[in-house]
Amino acid sequence: MGKKQSAGLSVKKHEDMSVWYTEVIQKADLADYSDVSGCIIFKPYSYAIWEKIQSEVDKRLKADGIQNVYFPLLIPEKLLQKEAAHVEGFSPEVAWVTHAGDSKLDERLAIRPTSETIMYESYSKWVRSHRDLPILYNQWNNVVRWEFKHPVPFLRTREFLWCEGHTAFATQEEAEKECNERLQMWEEVSKELFALQGVPGRKTDHEKFAGALYTLSIEYFLPNGKAIQGPDAHHDGQNFAKAFDIKFLSKEEKIEYAWQNTWAITTRMIGVLIMVHGDDYGLVLPPSLAPIQTVIIPIIFKDSKAKVLKKAKEIQKSLGDAKLDDREEYSPGWKFNEYELKGVPIRIELGPRDLDNDEVVVSRRDTRNKETVKIKDLKEYVNKTLEAIQKNLLKQSKKTLEDNTVEVKDFKGLKKAIDDKKLALALSCGEKACEESIKEKTGGAKSLNIPFSKKLVNGKCVQCNKEAVANILFGKGY
Amino acid sequence: MGKKQSAGLSVKKHEDMSVWYTEVIQKADLADYSDVSGCIIFKPYSYAIWEKIQSEVDKRLKADGIQNVYFPLLIPEKLLQKEAAHVEGFSPEVAWVTHAGDSKLDERLAIRPTSETIMYESYSKWVRSHRDLPILYNQWNNVVRWEFKHPVPFLRTREFLWCEGHTAFATQEEAEKECNERLQMWEEVSKELFALQGVPGRKTDHEKFAGALYTLSIEYFLPNGKAIQGPDAHHDGQNFAKAFDIKFLSKEEKIEYAWQNTWAITTRMIGVLIMVHGDDYGLVLPPSLAPIQTVIIPIIFKDSKAKVLKKAKEIQKSLGDAKLDDREEYSPGWKFNEYELKGVPIRIELGPRDLDNDEVVVSRRDTRNKETVKIKDLKEYVNKTLEAIQKNLLKQSKKTLEDNTVEVKDFKGLKKAIDDKKLALALSCGEKACEESIKEKTGGAKSLNIPFSKKLVNGKCVQCNKEAVANILFGKGY
Repeated sequence: MGKKQSAGLSVKKHEDMSVWYTEVIQKADLADYSDVSGCIIFKPYSYAIWEKIQSEVDKRLKADGIQNVYFPLLIPEKLLQKEAAHVEGFSPEVAWVTHAGDSKLDERLAIRPTSETIMYESYSKWVRSHRDLPILYNQWNNVVRWEFKHPVPFLRTREFLWCEGHTAFATQEEAEKECNERLQMWEEVSKELFALQGVPGRKTDHEKFAGALYTLSIEYFLPNGKAIQGPDAHHDGQNFAKAFDIKFLSKEEKIEYAWQNTWAITTRMIGVLIMVHGDDYGLVLPPSLAPIQTVIIPIIFKDSKAKVLKKAKEIQKSLGDAKLDDREEYSPGWKFNEYELKGVPIRIELGPRDLDNDEVVVSRRDTRNKETVKIKDLKEYVNKTLEAIQKNLLKQSKKTLEDNTVEVKDFKGLKKAIDDKKLALALSCGEKACEESIKEKTGGAKSLNIPFSKKLVNGKCVQCNKEAVANILFGKGY
Repeated sequence: MGKKQSAGLSVKKHEDMSVWYTEVIQKADLADYSDVSGCIIFKPYSYAIWEKIQSEVDKRLKADGIQNVYFPLLIPEKLLQKEAAHVEGFSPEVAWVTHAGDSKLDERLAIRPTSETIMYESYSKWVRSHRDLPILYNQWNNVVRWEFKHPVPFLRTREFLWCEGHTAFATQEEAEKECNERLQMWEEVSKELFALQGVPGRKTDHEKFAGALYTLSIEYFLPNGKAIQGPDAHHDGQNFAKAFDIKFLSKEEKIEYAWQNTWAITTRMIGVLIMVHGDDYGLVLPPSLAPIQTVIIPIIFKDSKAKVLKKAKEIQKSLGDAKLDDREEYSPGWKFNEYELKGVPIRIELGPRDLDNDEVVVSRRDTRNKETVKIKDLKEYVNKTLEAIQKNLLKQSKKTLEDNTVEVKDFKGLKKAIDDKKLALALSCGEKACEESIKEKTGGAKSLNIPFSKKLVNGKCVQCNKEAVANILFGKGY
């Protein structure tokens, strides 16, 4: 039986990022299209990445006292309509269930686009006294938002997976504290797991979540020049509490409405991961999220096969959770390509000649550097290299963000930055009209957020020349 | 502030099991009703049980090489219709999405009642050669079956959570081997996790899964005299492979259809757990699935408070994962009731007098026995007792099943067993007509399965007197 042929990518990343992205997803066997437009199939490799994300995020949430729950998928129309801004924001994208079997339902049911409305209806039953607060609930589930824009695997799909946290507190102070903590957690998760440098900040009123007082978000720069929103935390104030009648008897024996937050991280982040870290050879995974951190590939010749395989197994055992690919119907070269496509952080090659010298060849996926390492030093070398890869990817991501963010002084500078496929940080009056005008004149750049890291200095709005109230990051959305 | 009052159950289990069941669910804070009829809210305590089930089952599946995936929630109507028996079985219960936002969809989309049809459409694209087989995929997700029977929390809900495995093999032999292994795994899970003795067997043709060649199942006896089906494994033969065109080039270079299985375990099992193990004081959880295995309750008096709390914390630390409930606004008595309601396997009480003697009082939830244990022996005692509780619950469950299963010789015996709210094991000709006749004449007893454990001896069908082909277990379904 002939060895299978290698199958690298047909385009370089910078040549055509959209074709490149699609190829990486197919060739790294991450996902496939389904018969339902806009909904993808998570194949084992991408689902394993999602399981890693889930497990790490869940651990952090539980350490902060968050409990998991599960609320129904279907939301009666009357509940969805209770909070005005919320229904306005979501109803154009709602998938409606109208029939069950042959029967028409009395009331349409929405497939949850998000679960505030069905959860808060229950919160209003459960909360009576300040002693019933805080409520710190989260759920891991699927949601449907029937967007009519062009769908892109992971980045924009009509069904996606996420965790949605919905908390309620007795005071605004406590609620805002949690909202900030959650965004800090997302920053940590972004750096420590995803090795992604994003821009944490506060959304403008124009771009905030439907129903929130304000939205905190992390925005990412994608190397195709577009920006995309990552995990977020919304402070809802008492908006939903008033709409759903979530009130309680305070310590001071007064009836008060609860203060609430909402926060989420979604499978979109897998797309950001691919886009930012991937290269001309395929996916590049940060070790913290890699389903396979290290792969061992024995170079097998007939006469040394037993010896090499024995050593390969010993190495696998000593490393703990490395994968040994000893399939003989695939050539070493095919496997090298395969694991490069899949972004496996470390590859160990092991042939008869290496064995004679008690060494192996170790390749790093991020830099594609190869080094010969003594077997006795291998475990320590692998651990250090995994750490180094994680750090290097974050460093690269930070550099890409910095290189592609321009502080502009006027509208001309803003326009140029956007034309150059970069992000523009500009002083703004914060008015909706100005945001809309900028969007129109730049061919689509929108306000991403007001970065926390940038202090406001006195100055004028780059668009209308009125007194500026914020430094706003602008970019074209994905 | 006054101490909160205790709130035990208002009925005994044997008095009115349906009221008892509802009360346990409410008072142990397991679930709540939602605004969507037939769909419940999994509160943190029941969801934590489900997370334990997931984690243990997932570990076993992964050890057997099963990989997790995620397929879309929505299934186009034309896909659902591809396998005739399957669509006939499920279409009366399908929730249909007909609109997105304000737009009517060109084709109705079913919310998955199960995912064969959408998964196998992809399998047919992915499978070309025998080298692409086996496919061993599973997904953890939510499904909707809009049943019109009276819904019961956990046991019969219109939306439920489950894992659904869908595998494909090159030969029937391999497929049937996996089908059997899966059922064996369910038996282990049933005993080792749930401490539940069920009846493994094969469903009659009349009761098999819509689209399967045969169905293997575990059936449970509930103490209200009803039976309910637990986890299952279906051998689908080539039915779906032919309907979805899943074919491959075999080693012998022939085009062949794949052989397939489907298997599942659902949140229904939480209901079975409550029903079988619960008692007049509430839930009784097997240690393997208990979110809290051991709770420590300090008996606090002003003058000894510091000393008792210090010791309680030491004990908590030494036990590893025990919960310490040191809230002062609740009395020890209230807490005793609370953790009994919640079925926590072991309770440790610790007061100043116990401390003087270096001992604590340990209560077992299953037997409600109390024992005084020296603190130095506590860790070992707790570990042994957890094991003992797990074993005892399984033993009790086995006894209940045996005490309520009657081997009957004729129809009169069968009728009496059913009238006595028991299960009846009877020789049967295996014909659909006889099953239907038995159902009618007993007021609803249906064939549960053909138990593996019971050997067939020569004899006549209890209903029609023709030659018997199987020992069938009959009972009223939930």
